[in-house]
Amino acid sequence: MTHIAIIGFGVVGGGITEVIRLNKKAILRATGDEINVKYILDLRDFPDSPYADRVVHDFSVILNDPEVKIVCETMGGVNPAFDYSMQALRAGKSVVTSNKELVANRGVELMAEAKKNGVSYMFEASAGGGIPEIRSLRTSFGGDTVSEIDGILNGTTNYILTKMKNEGADFADVLKEAQKLGYAEANPAADVDGIDAQRKIVILTAIVTNQLASCDKVYTETMTKITPADMDAAARWGGTVKLLGSSRIDHENGKAAIYVCPTFVPNSCPIAHVDDVYNGIRVNSPVTNDYMLYGRGAGRMPTAGAVVSDVVSILSGVGAKELAMDWEHAEDDFVLPFGDISFAYYVRISTDSVDETLEKARLVFGEIEVLAGSPAGCVEFITAKIAEKDANAAFEGGALGEVQSRIRLM
Amino acid sequence: MTHIAIIGFGVVGGGITEVIRLNKKAILRATGDEINVKYILDLRDFPDSPYADRVVHDFSVILNDPEVKIVCETMGGVNPAFDYSMQALRAGKSVVTSNKELVANRGVELMAEAKKNGVSYMFEASAGGGIPEIRSLRTSFGGDTVSEIDGILNGTTNYILTKMKNEGADFADVLKEAQKLGYAEANPAADVDGIDAQRKIVILTAIVTNQLASCDKVYTETMTKITPADMDAAARWGGTVKLLGSSRIDHENGKAAIYVCPTFVPNSCPIAHVDDVYNGIRVNSPVTNDYMLYGRGAGRMPTAGAVVSDVVSILSGVGAKELAMDWEHAEDDFVLPFGDISFAYYVRISTDSVDETLEKARLVFGEIEVLAGSPAGCVEFITAKIAEKDANAAFEGGALGEVQSRIRLM
Repeated sequence: MTHIAIIGFGVVGGGITEVIRLNKKAILRATGDEINVKYILDLRDFPDSPYADRVVHDFSVILNDPEVKIVCETMGGVNPAFDYSMQALRAGKSVVTSNKELVANRGVELMAEAKKNGVSYMFEASAGGGIPEIRSLRTSFGGDTVSEIDGILNGTTNYILTKMKNEGADFADVLKEAQKLGYAEANPAADVDGIDAQRKIVILTAIVTNQLASCDKVYTETMTKITPADMDAAARWGGTVKLLGSSRIDHENGKAAIYVCPTFVPNSCPIAHVDDVYNGIRVNSPVTNDYMLYGRGAGRMPTAGAVVSDVVSILSGVGAKELAMDWEHAEDDFVLPFGDISFAYYVRISTDSVDETLEKARLVFGEIEVLAGSPAGCVEFITAKIAEKDANAAFEGGALGEVQSRIRLM
Repeated sequence: MTHIAIIGFGVVGGGITEVIRLNKKAILRATGDEINVKYILDLRDFPDSPYADRVVHDFSVILNDPEVKIVCETMGGVNPAFDYSMQALRAGKSVVTSNKELVANRGVELMAEAKKNGVSYMFEASAGGGIPEIRSLRTSFGGDTVSEIDGILNGTTNYILTKMKNEGADFADVLKEAQKLGYAEANPAADVDGIDAQRKIVILTAIVTNQLASCDKVYTETMTKITPADMDAAARWGGTVKLLGSSRIDHENGKAAIYVCPTFVPNSCPIAHVDDVYNGIRVNSPVTNDYMLYGRGAGRMPTAGAVVSDVVSILSGVGAKELAMDWEHAEDDFVLPFGDISFAYYVRISTDSVDETLEKARLVFGEIEVLAGSPAGCVEFITAKIAEKDANAAFEGGALGEVQSRIRLM
């Protein structure tokens, strides 16, 4: 019997008790051991919960009980989660977390502290919920040279974009509906402005480089400006619009292009078919040559299941040994300046004179592919690859007319 | 420096040396160690290979060299691969394999021998090539109660079905083209008749149940009878035809329905969008609630990469500890009789009198869903779920007319 504590008894924390109960037999088969939730730390009491008698309000009760071997941190936020986690690690307890904000900001210190104390700091649930992409990247691709990651890393925005695609609906209307259904928060900024995806792509990049980038170095673009006209154009082009967190890794020079933005994804890429609240993460390396994981990126049971999978790994004698990582805070020049990265773009311009606009565009971009079926008063085209800063310069001051939309291609 | 031996220097065996060379830095980062290929066992010599000096023809050279810690078996076939693997394990060497035929038949004995000698027997490359679904099922879902597996487990047949879908082509024509391109063997029976997929679904089922079923208990249906008319019907229904290996697991009673057959897959399921030579494996449990892995199920580099991922796991001190498994040969009644399993079916019947045929069909199947747009002289419908043996009885002796096609729904 291994005793654990849960700190933060919200949606995910509560789910952990449920997963342990549901999978009791499977856990026993996998580890030869049973898990007992000895303490639950929360500010609140839960008098109606079957776990009411385990609730404590003082972290030191957990810290000072040598029977507790693993602490599951599902509080969210950097503080006090960071302090509690560090104290637990110093006390020789392993820590498992679903807290992406904490891992994306302080993962370096937490992992180092775990190593120093011969215990594990694990965070499968911190990116991609029920999708075990962290373990996959650490183990199956741990000895591989992963050069590209593209992820639909946020279920809320993917639900909104799917609805927009299928129903031709406006962003604002779909957001309202998503909020009603509980798929989007009252304040949806962290989702729709890409902050959530930004933290996750920073974590995934660190897994394959050991370099934890500062979140504020990652170019991040909101998806709130995507319109039904963009969706329609993407369909005519042969794809759809997805909010992607992307990473292009240059192992030779120790650099990475990391960014989060709405992206045209071709239907030939499996990421284009990841719909509704599902997440999908595409990984590429010269050896595996295109691999994708697909599943529920959030939600009570999948996320709690990911936390429990880390607990099971520790009980199996594996834990952080899966692939010991030595993260460092990345140097300032690890993340390539966004202006230097080259993209092909979809462009829609209002114009009275299509021919004239296209002529100007060809002068700037060289070969362009004109999209058929444009709305009246508009011309649409796809550019060749060009550096972001050069594209910005080309459109500056309305040189090419009134740009209604400009979206990067995958 | 860890010394390994490769036995069988064919496509995959050769790929292993290449992956080790390509990923030298990544392997060092992941394990703190380097891998040296000390011996290569093959009947042939390879005078032009940079590894010519490592080639040996006598397995005892490898067996008796205590420096060799890991043997990579990429010979294929049950014998002599089984004998060599058992001898290596008894000599205290770990064995890593890509040999699905061997694992599907003798995995029980090999795993037990590894355990007895405190070493690892690992086989990530034996199912799904570059897709790490064995490690995912063992680790991330090791403490979970996986109840459903559906896999496109064979790239050759998926390439053929994709071509048939996109081009309205006949099976025979596409097969010829696939043979010309090297995607299908001169004798394609193991692929197109489902034998390859059968071995893989037996292995995947064993991962989550510890029960290794006899391959001959698994109902396996050829995909050579799928026609352009079937593909067309699937498209009108809202999906496509895929060759699936499927498993439905009843953990409570220790039983499983395991079968390989052409299946109507709805477009809403991500498996429907796994095209060309790619494989996809969908896993379901009450906790993860729909998860899919997608990637290259075969090929030199992805398969060799999977072998190397097992070597890396062993070097990382994890190896078979990932989740120690105790496989047994399944009792005869572990696999449910196929006749007892219920499916909904797509049915196409030649008829001069549509109304009469539908009336008869309704008497047998109750509610049916008639498919619009049928070819002239035919009626098509989807049945409710009915046991396979009852469906067989209903069609016996032409009671419902001349059945052109009957395909199970996912």
